[in-house]
Amino acid sequence: MREFLYPEESTWPELIKRPSQNIMQLEQEVKPILKDVKERGDEALKYYSKQFDQVEAKSLIVSVYEINQAQKKVNPALKQAIRLASQNIEKFHRAQKETVTRIETQPGILCWQKSVPIERIGLYIPGGTAPLFSTVLMLGIPAKIAGCSEIVLCTPPDRKGEVDGSILYAAHSVGIQRIYKVGGAQAIAAMAYGTESIPAVYKIFGPGNQYVTMAKLLISLECVAIDMPAGPSEVAIIADHSAEPDVIAADLLSQAEHGSDSQVLLVSTHAPLLAQVKESILFQLVELPRKKIAEAALRNSILVLLDNVSLALKFVNMYAPEHLIIMTEGPQKIADKVQNAGSVFLGKYAPESAGDYASGTNHTLPTNAMARSFSGISLDSFMKKITFQDISPEGLKNIASAIVTMAEAEQLQAHKRAVEMRLEKLNDRLDNEYR
Amino acid sequence: MREFLYPEESTWPELIKRPSQNIMQLEQEVKPILKDVKERGDEALKYYSKQFDQVEAKSLIVSVYEINQAQKKVNPALKQAIRLASQNIEKFHRAQKETVTRIETQPGILCWQKSVPIERIGLYIPGGTAPLFSTVLMLGIPAKIAGCSEIVLCTPPDRKGEVDGSILYAAHSVGIQRIYKVGGAQAIAAMAYGTESIPAVYKIFGPGNQYVTMAKLLISLECVAIDMPAGPSEVAIIADHSAEPDVIAADLLSQAEHGSDSQVLLVSTHAPLLAQVKESILFQLVELPRKKIAEAALRNSILVLLDNVSLALKFVNMYAPEHLIIMTEGPQKIADKVQNAGSVFLGKYAPESAGDYASGTNHTLPTNAMARSFSGISLDSFMKKITFQDISPEGLKNIASAIVTMAEAEQLQAHKRAVEMRLEKLNDRLDNEYR
Repeated sequence: MREFLYPEESTWPELIKRPSQNIMQLEQEVKPILKDVKERGDEALKYYSKQFDQVEAKSLIVSVYEINQAQKKVNPALKQAIRLASQNIEKFHRAQKETVTRIETQPGILCWQKSVPIERIGLYIPGGTAPLFSTVLMLGIPAKIAGCSEIVLCTPPDRKGEVDGSILYAAHSVGIQRIYKVGGAQAIAAMAYGTESIPAVYKIFGPGNQYVTMAKLLISLECVAIDMPAGPSEVAIIADHSAEPDVIAADLLSQAEHGSDSQVLLVSTHAPLLAQVKESILFQLVELPRKKIAEAALRNSILVLLDNVSLALKFVNMYAPEHLIIMTEGPQKIADKVQNAGSVFLGKYAPESAGDYASGTNHTLPTNAMARSFSGISLDSFMKKITFQDISPEGLKNIASAIVTMAEAEQLQAHKRAVEMRLEKLNDRLDNEYR
Repeated sequence: MREFLYPEESTWPELIKRPSQNIMQLEQEVKPILKDVKERGDEALKYYSKQFDQVEAKSLIVSVYEINQAQKKVNPALKQAIRLASQNIEKFHRAQKETVTRIETQPGILCWQKSVPIERIGLYIPGGTAPLFSTVLMLGIPAKIAGCSEIVLCTPPDRKGEVDGSILYAAHSVGIQRIYKVGGAQAIAAMAYGTESIPAVYKIFGPGNQYVTMAKLLISLECVAIDMPAGPSEVAIIADHSAEPDVIAADLLSQAEHGSDSQVLLVSTHAPLLAQVKESILFQLVELPRKKIAEAALRNSILVLLDNVSLALKFVNMYAPEHLIIMTEGPQKIADKVQNAGSVFLGKYAPESAGDYASGTNHTLPTNAMARSFSGISLDSFMKKITFQDISPEGLKNIASAIVTMAEAEQLQAHKRAVEMRLEKLNDRLDNEYR
């Protein structure tokens, strides 16, 4: 890890640069896959399954039998853990339900906004080295609370053509029935365009490798919504003299083991911490099964020493981390001033892994400085807001002249006429009543 | 307008197809402009200003003097109309502020979600045939309520190198100071990458022609957020026997005059309405200054007769209109069942132009069936949500075993260690206290 002692503010933009991720170069590789799936449907999916996953797919859908079998294999302790995590995730996301408030903007003009579920959504769950069943919970639970009526899940099969049991268990526990053994860019294409087996959806969620991310970006150009462009995972830690080096080291490593392209940052106001944390990292690394991955990630990572906590906060807001852990005295005061971060962890007993799994907050979060403008996944991500207006004759009269004046200034005569026509009809009606 | 009498449900997907908009073909034209602005900054902006707007730009920024002068030219009636509209827009959007609710998902685990303004945003206001000052209000007012600290506005100059006075007045009334005379794809590039004059922003809002839309889509691939991909404007009207044909015709025309690529739909349950509306359209068309545009739009548009209101609603939900006007008896009952629409207008006295200008709802809405998954602009669009968790020792103990079990199953040992390390430190501390 590179160390920076009291760097000048002018050098910060350079320090916070992410390792470059040139996924645009994959555009030419991914485009033909999308086109092929659009044109040949299931045939294309089976072709890519053979080519990329080395699997002869008989059926793309996971059968009820497979789901039942898989569940028997998941051990009871894991089932219980999933239940507890699910309860917390559900509790936090259910609290995000919004009530409809009607606002009378002027007498006779009632306006309101209502959240309505997105009817058809698709979830992508990557395969690879570890089965990410936790992401099934993080996407599936809010989708169910939102009331999405059709939820499709795609995940790549292993070499035996099977889907990991814990993924099937998590999906089943959430209430997702349509699970397909399809991975990669072709899965994104299938959910965007629809095939004989897989229905087209309106919004696609979930992490994935660079091909999946590229596919999501490309289909987002064709009016299918996506959750957000996903990049490598990150954590930043703000720590003062009160923080424990071993705990910081453990947190940095827990992020670093995600992938060799992960990035971890320690921003401290306490000089001795830097050496202590580095030492502890070396010590803890030894026993890690994913040591190689973590080491690679640490090479992209930095330790920064700054004069005070408010500078540290400024640095972190500029970096806009996916995860931010605040290990200082009085973390709440600092948390209140966070402007750019995906999810924030306060104090000594809030490891990032709590949010990754079980505290209740969502773990699908904006990376690569996108926290400056993007939110993580919440109940909102599975709904859209529709506005309504109910206008009485009195209400229309109250705003008629403003509309007419503005429409004229924008040279939209028919806009003006739509108001005037109503006023004429209203006058006719009143005349008739007086007669 | 084409007419469809009692069409079979199986034919609906064909009926609701939008006129095709192949903006992807512009990709190769727009990409070099983006690249050029990224590399040459202001130089490139001036070059394109000359090429596309036929203007020799001396300065890109609109001066305080220009803003003051422009305001003198705006007539008092328009100023008053803008003030009234602004009040209603402000009232409706201010009511969208969310309060932070802390949820204890389990004893000792406190989670909450907080909306924080996006610090730097960019607004694009098109030039062209009419000055869209109303869009300045629709984007600027919620941005100010959200608390965005830096708001940049780009709009193309006219042949004299000037910006329309009503746009400057609207911007000034909202409190936007940084206004640049730059239009087209190059304006989007400038706000995405930043130039010597124009600061880079984190999210770009606003309508525009196909080049602007393509530019927004392309920069969204590079981690700059955009409001939504904008397509041609649309309205659908559900009308029964109680609706007045002249009013329907006026509303259809008010949408049709937006652009020749606009689309309007009437879905009725009352057979005589169709002929009456067509007749009224012909009559009203005569006096419209934008007759040619409206006629072209009407050629893309359809009248549909269906058996009952619930079928009409089903049809409209499948179409997912940007604007939906419900002119039936008891419109509220129908409004409650709307699943896909941008903004809904209830009853005889709610023309679309009310929402376009002055009722208080936002007029930047999802088009091209995007209402299935996208919301229109709201206060939320200018903020992002950050989640927080504050976990006590008791809280960590309550979820520790779930985290450890799940992390192990996902083969993430360091995630598990981050929890265990904290528990060890906690035990050490307790031991010390007992001693």
